[in-house]
Amino acid sequence: MKPVLFVLLDAFAEWECAYLASALRSDPFAARFLTRFASLDGRAVRSIGGMCVQPDCAAVSLPGDCAALILVGGMNWQDARTEQLVPLIHEAVSRGVLVGAICNAVSFLAAHGFLDAVRHTGNTREVLEAWGGANYRGGALYEARQAVCDGGFVTANGSAALEFTRECLLALDKDASEAVIQNYLFYKQGFYHE
Amino acid sequence: MKPVLFVLLDAFAEWECAYLASALRSDPFAARFLTRFASLDGRAVRSIGGMCVQPDCAAVSLPGDCAALILVGGMNWQDARTEQLVPLIHEAVSRGVLVGAICNAVSFLAAHGFLDAVRHTGNTREVLEAWGGANYRGGALYEARQAVCDGGFVTANGSAALEFTRECLLALDKDASEAVIQNYLFYKQGFYHE
Repeated sequence: MKPVLFVLLDAFAEWECAYLASALRSDPFAARFLTRFASLDGRAVRSIGGMCVQPDCAAVSLPGDCAALILVGGMNWQDARTEQLVPLIHEAVSRGVLVGAICNAVSFLAAHGFLDAVRHTGNTREVLEAWGGANYRGGALYEARQAVCDGGFVTANGSAALEFTRECLLALDKDASEAVIQNYLFYKQGFYHE
Repeated sequence: MKPVLFVLLDAFAEWECAYLASALRSDPFAARFLTRFASLDGRAVRSIGGMCVQPDCAAVSLPGDCAALILVGGMNWQDARTEQLVPLIHEAVSRGVLVGAICNAVSFLAAHGFLDAVRHTGNTREVLEAWGGANYRGGALYEARQAVCDGGFVTANGSAALEFTRECLLALDKDASEAVIQNYLFYKQGFYHE
């Protein structure tokens, strides 16, 4: 059972991790993956919607057999304390662990130079340039899509929770692609088409 | 500030409450509503995705100025302990407090006779009939739509988190309809249309 580590800051965007976490604990993934939730210091955080989450651990190291590090968007990705995540992301990259980031967490990646050599998306190229300043040199690799997977990174904008889920799951297990796509379409289109 | 009370069982479906809770704590709703989360006994619950939530209270009474009671779907709505919610729902109905239910929580309503006189939807009419048995006499009022609002109830199937959010918000504040619809379309279509 390989852990997928979700990082939740205070005021995290609960819809951005909801589909991915639940899919990982459902067929056909549940037999091979488990989810773990981390906050910066291991203490409870509240979602944007006010839900109090007690994390499983602090975001200070990657589990030994970690399958993915998921950075969930929210309102506090410009807080200075998020700097503690930079070595964690470097460790994931050097170990070949998938890094998924959505919404403001993508802007954080841009601002720390992680997106300079991979195709990616985010909350518009302009936002990445504004957050990243001189540290972001990946503008030419920005793509106007809901979610992009390249070079060990999955990136997505804040409206793309379902596409983010799809790309992360496909990156974790290409053999499950039919189930992943069916799951995506079910939630994207809805059981009844309006 | 009127509270909206969300009921979370163990193995609750986190995507089903994510958009509604976060919308209630964002403009134009944040100035008038607050969110509270309850479990049956006030103890922590885990979402389907494995996220540990520490609720604010136990689901034993409605706040005095409660604006809505939201029953979040999940895997445990056939647990006998959910019976404690029946008087809470009756109290909401008698006080004119909006009741929102999604996915298996709708089946629970059907099984307790709450849907016999209101137009509603759910996880198919067949599922409501199977769960409800002789207690469900509302089959003729079932509608094949993502979400339905009627007679103080909002009902939705498990793929309809966005439509559920839209109908609950419109029921809480018709004057916010333009913002509600825009918010719905942003997440439904996505920032980039695939």
